[in-house]
Amino acid sequence: MRPRLALVPGEPAGVGPELCVRLAQQAQPAELVAYADPDTLRAAARALRLPLELCEPGQAAGPGRLALVPVPQAAPVRFGEPDPANARAVITALERAGAACLAGEYQGLVTGPVHKASINAGGIPYTGTTELLAGQAGTPVVMMLARPGLRVALATTHLPLRAVADAITRESLEQTLRILHAALVRDFGLGQPRIAVLGLNPHAGEDGHLGREEIEVIAPVLTALRAEGMSLEGPLPADTAFLPARLEHCDAVLAMYHDQGLPVLKHGGFEHAVNISLGLPYPRVAVDHGTALTLAGRGLADPSSMLAAVALCARLGARKLAA
Amino acid sequence: MRPRLALVPGEPAGVGPELCVRLAQQAQPAELVAYADPDTLRAAARALRLPLELCEPGQAAGPGRLALVPVPQAAPVRFGEPDPANARAVITALERAGAACLAGEYQGLVTGPVHKASINAGGIPYTGTTELLAGQAGTPVVMMLARPGLRVALATTHLPLRAVADAITRESLEQTLRILHAALVRDFGLGQPRIAVLGLNPHAGEDGHLGREEIEVIAPVLTALRAEGMSLEGPLPADTAFLPARLEHCDAVLAMYHDQGLPVLKHGGFEHAVNISLGLPYPRVAVDHGTALTLAGRGLADPSSMLAAVALCARLGARKLAA
Repeated sequence: MRPRLALVPGEPAGVGPELCVRLAQQAQPAELVAYADPDTLRAAARALRLPLELCEPGQAAGPGRLALVPVPQAAPVRFGEPDPANARAVITALERAGAACLAGEYQGLVTGPVHKASINAGGIPYTGTTELLAGQAGTPVVMMLARPGLRVALATTHLPLRAVADAITRESLEQTLRILHAALVRDFGLGQPRIAVLGLNPHAGEDGHLGREEIEVIAPVLTALRAEGMSLEGPLPADTAFLPARLEHCDAVLAMYHDQGLPVLKHGGFEHAVNISLGLPYPRVAVDHGTALTLAGRGLADPSSMLAAVALCARLGARKLAA
Repeated sequence: MRPRLALVPGEPAGVGPELCVRLAQQAQPAELVAYADPDTLRAAARALRLPLELCEPGQAAGPGRLALVPVPQAAPVRFGEPDPANARAVITALERAGAACLAGEYQGLVTGPVHKASINAGGIPYTGTTELLAGQAGTPVVMMLARPGLRVALATTHLPLRAVADAITRESLEQTLRILHAALVRDFGLGQPRIAVLGLNPHAGEDGHLGREEIEVIAPVLTALRAEGMSLEGPLPADTAFLPARLEHCDAVLAMYHDQGLPVLKHGGFEHAVNISLGLPYPRVAVDHGTALTLAGRGLADPSSMLAAVALCARLGARKLAA
């Protein structure tokens, strides 16, 4: 049985709607149900000169058909021009899809890019979809990005650099590692996942000469969790941890902060990269790109990340279905 | 006319000596003069079963011959086991070679890996060869790593992460950019080098939401230097600045700190990476790897980085010779 996934295009004026239309043109490894404004999806299909027939969830889909739960927008879409009047609809689509996932109606959620500034301009506090879904589920979440051959999870995400060191405590790091480890076992089916944990400082602090967080925070947490049986390497110097020969021996890298881990990941295969939220009660996978407003409505957006997001979420959802 | 380069193997117990022996086995694009202990070089040659004939500087070299300025060690080498008794000889070799470069006897300096802990254990304060040479020359230096297709310079180098933000001031950043720009013009022969400057914070601060250093420090410096004619892009989000399509349009990336720039560089081609000191009165290129004590004396060390260092230093030295 194929898993059933909720699909939220994100910002209507961005490339999300056309990527959903393109998903509908070919067979997918999951039954997809979009939460979106029907007129926006039809406008995207017209702009791309692709067929689109919107239907009820549960109706058999074929090429050009897409199941839909309508979430009407306040204003008609104009591709490339986000309208804060539609901020509420964007958030409502995410909230309704998230709630349905929590209720067990779907085995996973795939999301497109949201335009943060437009949501905020619409008067809605919003820092990111990951945070929104974590708040709705009432659970801490770890952000992990993945492309073929590399998974990078983050101990901190969107913080000013000067706030990073203080944000990493023994408690927060232990929680992050527990969530990451559990997700690799449960969602990814790895029996004994091997996690490479980076240091915070250059050369992983060089025995305390370049910072003491490795000695005082990171190493003690790793020691404690190894005693529970986790396979953890580190704290490792970030600059050599990503050597290809090293990566062969690990299932995921835990970076301490955003720019320590993500440049490598994107450098080596941005198109196929996806963003996974670990720790939610359901698998959630997002595209790893922005709204690409300058491309929107022109059929120029590369659908690789969206296709990879659906493929991975379907795989994780199938595992959930079988569990 | 081939340039003449000084060559310092670095830690005797590491892979430096055998890499120098291997350089001597084949024609090089420069006349090399080693500053080292003759017995150590002979021991490395014996261990690798390679011929080695040490000769005076200026004598014609052929395969298996290496010109040498002897810098005797206090204790015989034991590969894999650094001896603090030899710390003084390691530093003296660097100092003498550096002084000879400053005196114009050579058009460049190539250095192998130094074992910092052993130098410090020998009672000599030492933070790095780059810092030693900068102090000797009395000039600020910028560290740049390069591999085919990518050059990454650093605005800060070996600092604890929590010290990075405060270390980047308008003055320090302007100085770094001036040194980088001048070196790309003078040493690398780029008429109008294009430099991509990263932000300090994730997403380059996202318009101030994730830190204000981009607005208050980085952007004003870029604006001022652009007015002088420099081609500077940024401040750019680090995670997307290294996308291959972006890198095609720049000659060097300036990262704000060590682990923002070096993981990508090493991930994509560690073997051929080299470390270049910009701002010295002479070109200096180092291998981009450590002493590799576990490999030393066994003929297992990959000479690619040393070969690349000599090749690049010869190219930069030839430009200096022609100037």
